[in-house]
Amino acid sequence: MNEGQFIAALQKLALHPGARGLEDDCAVIAVGGEHLILTTDMMAEGTHYRPQADMADVAWKLVAVNLSDLASKGAEPIGLLLGHSLGRSDARFLAGLRDVLDAFGVTLLGGDTIAATGASTLCITALGRATHVPVPSRQGAQAGDNLYVTGMLGRAMLGFEGVEEHLPAFNRPVPRLAEGRALAPVVSAMMDISDGLLLDCWRMAQASGATIQLETTAIPVADPARLDACVRWGDDYELLFTLPPDADLPVAATRIGTVLEQRPAPLIFGETPIHRPDNLGYRHG
Amino acid sequence: MNEGQFIAALQKLALHPGARGLEDDCAVIAVGGEHLILTTDMMAEGTHYRPQADMADVAWKLVAVNLSDLASKGAEPIGLLLGHSLGRSDARFLAGLRDVLDAFGVTLLGGDTIAATGASTLCITALGRATHVPVPSRQGAQAGDNLYVTGMLGRAMLGFEGVEEHLPAFNRPVPRLAEGRALAPVVSAMMDISDGLLLDCWRMAQASGATIQLETTAIPVADPARLDACVRWGDDYELLFTLPPDADLPVAATRIGTVLEQRPAPLIFGETPIHRPDNLGYRHG
Repeated sequence: MNEGQFIAALQKLALHPGARGLEDDCAVIAVGGEHLILTTDMMAEGTHYRPQADMADVAWKLVAVNLSDLASKGAEPIGLLLGHSLGRSDARFLAGLRDVLDAFGVTLLGGDTIAATGASTLCITALGRATHVPVPSRQGAQAGDNLYVTGMLGRAMLGFEGVEEHLPAFNRPVPRLAEGRALAPVVSAMMDISDGLLLDCWRMAQASGATIQLETTAIPVADPARLDACVRWGDDYELLFTLPPDADLPVAATRIGTVLEQRPAPLIFGETPIHRPDNLGYRHG
Repeated sequence: MNEGQFIAALQKLALHPGARGLEDDCAVIAVGGEHLILTTDMMAEGTHYRPQADMADVAWKLVAVNLSDLASKGAEPIGLLLGHSLGRSDARFLAGLRDVLDAFGVTLLGGDTIAATGASTLCITALGRATHVPVPSRQGAQAGDNLYVTGMLGRAMLGFEGVEEHLPAFNRPVPRLAEGRALAPVVSAMMDISDGLLLDCWRMAQASGATIQLETTAIPVADPARLDACVRWGDDYELLFTLPPDADLPVAATRIGTVLEQRPAPLIFGETPIHRPDNLGYRHG
């Protein structure tokens, strides 16, 4: 099975209402007056990081990508659970874990440590508390809303390729936690960009029952000569969100498009309608 | 690093107060008037299951061992997050997942699905709600308390060895959720037995600052001729708990020993004091 087939099968199992049909970045559950946000991300050697990667960077990124999911919900982190397979460079892993916990003021809640053979696999579950209800989701983008993105896209790609100034973007991404909290009360839809701008715009459009038109020249990219690659590569962990036209923008971000009434194509890249999500971004499996 | 060294290093990082120093089976956090219970367990091909194992059984067991941790806290499950590496027999995995969700009335909250190379690794995070406060822990066994265990030990070992009647105990263990909820209000200490009776008794004694004396002839084992193996092998997922001497026993269980004032040896097996935890049970790494 590929990832899409597996998730489609999971969606037919017993789901918690807070699972949002497994179509969002996080689960959202109401517990005694609070709204808890939960997310899990796994990373595997050979798929998500190279065997020669510094495991301190891998630890940082593993935590950061989970915190980025919390950021997309405007959540404040409560803590993390770590699933760790013992292997090479455990000391470096621990050093990076310490760095990322300290950098974002996050604590460990628990975990499990196992011996495994072969390539290592790591898993983080992050738990957070919503700071605003309703909790933002991918749904909710309305015709007439403006589409925004924080930061600059393509930096992780350039870092992966070894461009010195962009190495931190690839190795130690910074989740947009403060921006997410500031945006939660005003956005109509929000998600983080993990799999590339185009694919994630596609998903937001589909979840919202709308079409998104991107203004290609407005998209902030690290290498304008490689626009197509920068909007597909992923791994940037910026926030993608929509605002009603009269809303004030509470954080630094760039307007990159508009939400339209649903058309046959969920996504329009400049003037080019995109009818299928193939080749839009990073997909597993 | 081995598991003990890795956990000792984790314990020096920033821990949430609810992490209980990473010395318990679960984290316990107070959220909006409720007490949430969180636990994560990983399983890896080659370490926790054989490459030829039926992945339906593996899915069941992965969920069951997490639910067993919730049971040891007297918690009611809320839902699960699954970290899954795509691989062989995804359809069988899904079938077993459906079985176990249905059997225990548990739902999926979310997860992450990745492509990985080589041996597969799986991770479940279970979230539950405490049904009784204070939430039971490994601490709290008091001199004079009686020690009990549910069920029979060694069944998983015999199932692993291929003994027909004990195959379900190895492949599809049943977490003691109802027993855990009934026991939570009355126990002085409780945990589940995942790594063998002796090692888990050792841990309870150490956490409680007490010594535990086991009555060897009282321990319910599936093969009395192999008592030593049955109390060390693990994987049985029964509940181990202590009760004050005047407490009524609310579930079916067997009294197997007594809690004593702390002595030099945390554990006494019959008349034999055990001073070191080496070779008491299953350890990773």
